Parts: sequence; structure tokens; C-alpha cells
Amino acid sequence: MVDQQARTGGDRRPTEIPAIRWEEPPEGPVLVLLDQTRLPAEEVELVCTDAAALVEAIRSLAVRGAPLLGIAGAYGVALAAARGFDVAEAARALEEARPTAVNLSVGVRRAQAAHQAALARTGDPTAAAVAALAAARALHQEDAEASARMADHGLALLDELLSGGGHRILTHCNSGSLVSGGEGTAFAVALAAHRAGRLRRLWVDETRPLLQGARLTAYEAARSGMAYTLLTDNAAGSLFAAGEVDAVVIGADRIAADGSVANKVGSYPLAVLARYHHVPFIVVAPLTTVDLDTPDGASIEVEQRPGFEVTEVAAPQAAGVGGGIPVAPLGTQAYNPAFDVTPPELVTAIVTEEGVVSPVTAEALAELCARSAAGAPSASG
Amino acid sequence: MVDQQARTGGDRRPTEIPAIRWEEPPEGPVLVLLDQTRLPAEEVELVCTDAAALVEAIRSLAVRGAPLLGIAGAYGVALAAARGFDVAEAARALEEARPTAVNLSVGVRRAQAAHQAALARTGDPTAAAVAALAAARALHQEDAEASARMADHGLALLDELLSGGGHRILTHCNSGSLVSGGEGTAFAVALAAHRAGRLRRLWVDETRPLLQGARLTAYEAARSGMAYTLLTDNAAGSLFAAGEVDAVVIGADRIAADGSVANKVGSYPLAVLARYHHVPFIVVAPLTTVDLDTPDGASIEVEQRPGFEVTEVAAPQAAGVGGGIPVAPLGTQAYNPAFDVTPPELVTAIVTEEGVVSPVTAEALAELCARSAAGAPSASG
Repeated sequence: MVDQQARTGGDRRPTEIPAIRWEEPPEGPVLVLLDQTRLPAEEVELVCTDAAALVEAIRSLAVRGAPLLGIAGAYGVALAAARGFDVAEAARALEEARPTAVNLSVGVRRAQAAHQAALARTGDPTAAAVAALAAARALHQEDAEASARMADHGLALLDELLSGGGHRILTHCNSGSLVSGGEGTAFAVALAAHRAGRLRRLWVDETRPLLQGARLTAYEAARSGMAYTLLTDNAAGSLFAAGEVDAVVIGADRIAADGSVANKVGSYPLAVLARYHHVPFIVVAPLTTVDLDTPDGASIEVEQRPGFEVTEVAAPQAAGVGGGIPVAPLGTQAYNPAFDVTPPELVTAIVTEEGVVSPVTAEALAELCARSAAGAPSASG
Repeated sequence: MVDQQARTGGDRRPTEIPAIRWEEPPEGPVLVLLDQTRLPAEEVELVCTDAAALVEAIRSLAVRGAPLLGIAGAYGVALAAARGFDVAEAARALEEARPTAVNLSVGVRRAQAAHQAALARTGDPTAAAVAALAAARALHQEDAEASARMADHGLALLDELLSGGGHRILTHCNSGSLVSGGEGTAFAVALAAHRAGRLRRLWVDETRPLLQGARLTAYEAARSGMAYTLLTDNAAGSLFAAGEVDAVVIGADRIAADGSVANKVGSYPLAVLARYHHVPFIVVAPLTTVDLDTPDGASIEVEQRPGFEVTEVAAPQAAGVGGGIPVAPLGTQAYNPAFDVTPPELVTAIVTEEGVVSPVTAEALAELCARSAAGAPSASG
């Protein structure tokens, strides 16, 4: 099985416990999730025996991250089918678990379409369930392969841009195996450098307000045996000034047609600092992140998140659900954008599974997307 | 009495409860402190009846901030003298409470010198105690007056630099009446704009790792009735990009002879963002902050603070003393510089009680210091 192959390929897994896996014990198939709300304090797995349990896990952020949500949604449909539940109802509930997560919806629909097609073709619910599971596994495998190709392209780019000696990479938020069917995006590049013996240090921004850097990226770096150091987002400027950063490598939530990059809030200040200090600013994301229907950065709508994420600090178990410890006066208003937008002129390169775009222009991005859609062989820049 | 005058001058006090005050109840003189470790959750006053209690309050950060520590130290000597304790012993203990706090030592020595001189002159311990208290009150009053003059100069500068309409000011860390005998430095400028009806919004950086912005500046802004909004340090870039910041106004821990400014970590990234967005970056500090013996930014030694401030988040009561909630994996190393250094070319102006230096050059700073030392009338640039 694809997922079990992934598990046993030990030297390619950054953590021993995968973020998601399909299992088939004698009592029936289950989807097993690493509960990310309890990291790094505890490594607890959630076992979902139906789609409703998965919906709850998605809502509570036990499973999160765009690519991983898509994979989880597809497995959720497969689970409903394999256990004989109403597949359409399960698909609807899964899609509604986080309505703004596009990947979740795409994953759910892919597995549901495979199920419907097999049912129409064979009339056999068992065959249809097998088809849904095959679709989920294919998505999982594609994502893992895309991660591996991004890592290869990204490491080649680092080696090209930076002079000899180990690379000192600054990253922001979480972009590793916890959000991916493989090893992630930006984190996968750092991990490839580590495996190649060319990572001198991974600087990990803590990433307020939800501390994904401290909680998740530091966890992944520690599990992978990387040389890493955590810092407050405030301290990045001191690192640049001291000449301690060779490259900034981050992921992306969405990339507009002009090459503007929406990513976790705090990315744009790093881009400005990188430019001021003549340090490469590299974005690593799958081509599905490029949205040619969004013309530019100004067209990207920025989600404003609840103020309590800023006015309270929370223990890992409570992160994202309120109930934290208030640190600001009661009634304090907070400005809490979920992400920010970096204009293309501050982005040195965009690394995708199909190759590298550098310099970042609308034409170069459109060409890469067209080449990928046409199924041409992948290119590296 | 000076401090009581300060208390009753209601429209000039940003908070109802002063950070420090001398009282003389029938049972003997006391020094009353607002316990800053419990803010903003609780407003609790600590009553010190001897220097030992004050030493404990200084060590626990119940009282903090360079100018305020100097004032507290001077009152501590006066308290020991008024209560008949060994003044030299009290002075030594106070100086050692935070050995790196230069202002504390300066304040202690000033009151001690006044005490010794009066004792030598009169041979009367009561007269000497009165002289020590007078020295402490003079220091307190001078600091309050310096704050008021910085506020006037700063507001005039803002009005000059910015076009009509209200000012939207971004500040970092805490620089108000909680660290000062008056209304502080940068915060005093924002407060002056507020009183003049020209503050449209005060943007308050939360200021990780110790969250002085969220805990203390938001508290002072709320108590003063200012329009303020809290944000993570990460979100400042989004505000600049949206054109929502008219000026950055911050304090300083130390200013080198070339105009390099050491201030709370996170200040330098704001300076780079301000430059990229053509927004004035204004530093407000008393002339005592200018250290002509430190030639440049590279000569400023940056204190590295304990990693637990980054790897743990703490409730207000526990801030700065460990014992918080771990958010990063055990064993995580943290890079935690206490402050950063902004080079003079990124500083639009330095506002002091004696006037404004802009552009910031070694020559202009030296001239202002020389003029001040010569007792020339204050100038505004």
C-alpha cells in the first residue's frame, strides 16, 4: 500500500509518526491522524472509524495544512464507502468542516467522483469503495512526489545561489510533513539540504500568533536531527544584521498570476529584510497554489482572524480554540490578519514541482503552468 | 510634595495609579509601587517599608524601566535614611539588585551623596534624611519635566513631518509612565498627540518575547482613553503595506555617538519597513541615553537573554521568571537577544528633552550634548 510504503521508507520520513495513514485492522478500515493540537507536548494519534470523527478532527485543527486536508478529505470519503455509510452525505459533511479550505473540497470531490464512476460502471459498492480508496492513495502519492521534486529543485537552487559551505536558512510558520502527504514544501528543501550535509542551521521563526514555528517546525526539525534554533519573529532582523542568514525559504498559501505570494503573516517583513540585506527570498509551493484567476496581490482577500489569538496566549492543547491566558487588558482590539502578501519584486524565486521561476514574472509563471498542463517534461531553472 | 503634586495633576497622568510614590502615613514613611508583574490582570500596589523590600521588588521586576529604576533607587536610599537604617548598606544592596541597570546606580548614588553631604555639614541624621528625600524628589521631578519636554518636541515634529489629519503611530515595547517619573518617552509623544486631538490610532506591537506591548502599553493606552489596536509583531508589515502607519515612534535603551539606536528587539525590522515604505522612524529618549563613549552600533554589546522566554509562554504574573507553559519541544535552543541596533541612516529623528536631532549625525548629536552640558537654552529642530 502506498501509505505503508511511505511509513517504512524510514530514511525519507522526517518524523516516525506520519501525519496521516490508512490502516486495515481486522475490525475494519480506519484513518489514523497525528493530533497536531497536542504537539509538541504529546504525540497522540486519533483513530477515525467514520467520516464524522474526521470532520471533528478537521474542525479542531487536529489535522491541518492545505495539502494534508485534501488528502484527509479523500480518505474520509474512502472510509465512508468502505464502511458502507452514505458517501454523498459524508462528502458534504467533510467539505463543510472547513468551508474556505479549497484543497479539502478538491480532495473530497476527487474520491467521490472515483466512487461514483466505479459504482456507475460496475454497480458494485465494494468495487466503488476500492476505487475511492485508490483515488485517495493516488492523491497522497502525488503530493509526496511533488514534495520530493520541490525539495530537489529547491536544493539545486540554493547550491546555485549560495557560495560554498553550509546553508543557513530562515523559515517561517510550518511547511513540513505535518501539512503534506510527503515532506512538505519549504521545510522539504531544508530537509534535503540537511540530508545532503549542506544545512548549517535552520532558523525557525516562532510565528505568532499561533506559534506554528515553535510548536510544529521545531518539532519536525528536532525529529529530523537538524541543527535548528528557535527565535521570536522580532529577532529575525538581528540575524540578518549579523550576516547569519543565507536564504529565506518559505511556503505559500496562494500565488497570484503576477507572482504575488500570500503566506502566513510575517512573511512580507522577512522579504523586506531580505531585500535590504541582499539575501535571497525563496518561495516553495506546488503548482496548484498558483491561482491564475487572481491577477495580482491586491486581489487577494486577506482573512482577519479572531482577536483572542493575539490578546491571549494559549497552551498547545488549547491553541486556536480560545480559552487561553489573557495578556492584554480586557476589551483590547486586535489586528490579526491570517497572512500577508509579498509582491513579486521581492521574491527571488518560486520553486514548484515542475521547476523554478526566477525572476518572478507573470509571463514565466503562466508559461510554467501551461507547460505543466500540457504534460511536458519538468524543467528546472 | 512633588510626587503628590504629580498625583493630583489628574489631566497630566495617563493612569490613576502612579508607578511609584512616596507616602508619609503616621506609622512612618513608605515607598508605594504599582506591581508591574501583575498588570494588566490586576492593579496591586506594593508598600515598601525598608530598602530590602524595594530590592525584592526590583529583582522581581515589580518595578522596572531605566528612568523609573533610578528614581526608585534614590527613594530607597531616602527610605533607609528616614527610617534610621544603615544608609551605606541599603545603597549597596539597591545597586546590586540589578547590577547592569546604570540608571539605578546613578539614582542611588545621587541620594546617597546628598545624604552624606548633609550629614557632614550638619551632623544631624534627620537633616541628612531630609536631604536624601529632596534629592530623590528632584530626580523624580526632573524626569517628569524631561518627559513633558520630549512630548512637546515630539508632537511638534510629528505635526511638521505629517500632513493634516490625525496621526497613526506605531510603537513597540513599553515607554510610558510605567518606566518613567513622568509620562515616558515615545508613549508620551503619542499621549500628547491624543490630548491635542491629533492621534488617530496608536498601533501597539505586542513585543515578544515578554509582551510588554500587550501587557503594559495596551494597559496605559486603555487607561488614557486612546484609540489603540494591538497586533502581533508579525502584522506590522501588513499595516505598512496597507498605508496605515504615518510614523513609527519608539524609545531607546542606548544611543551611540554616531546615532545608532539600541532598543528592544524588533525595533530594527520596523526601521527597515519604515524606510521601505517612506514612513518616518522617530526615536524619543532623554539625553542621558546618549552615550558618547560608545562610538557606534557595532560597539554596543547585545545582551542575550534566557531561551525559556521564547520556548515558553507565561501568564503575566509569571513573566520573566520562568515556569511558563512550554510551546517548543524540550531541548530547543533559542536565539533571544534583548535588543537590536538601528543604524543612524534609518533613523529620521532623535527627539530629546533638549530638542530634536534630524538628520541624525555624530556631529549634530555631539553638539546637542555639548549645548545641554553648557546649560544653554533648549532648542527644537
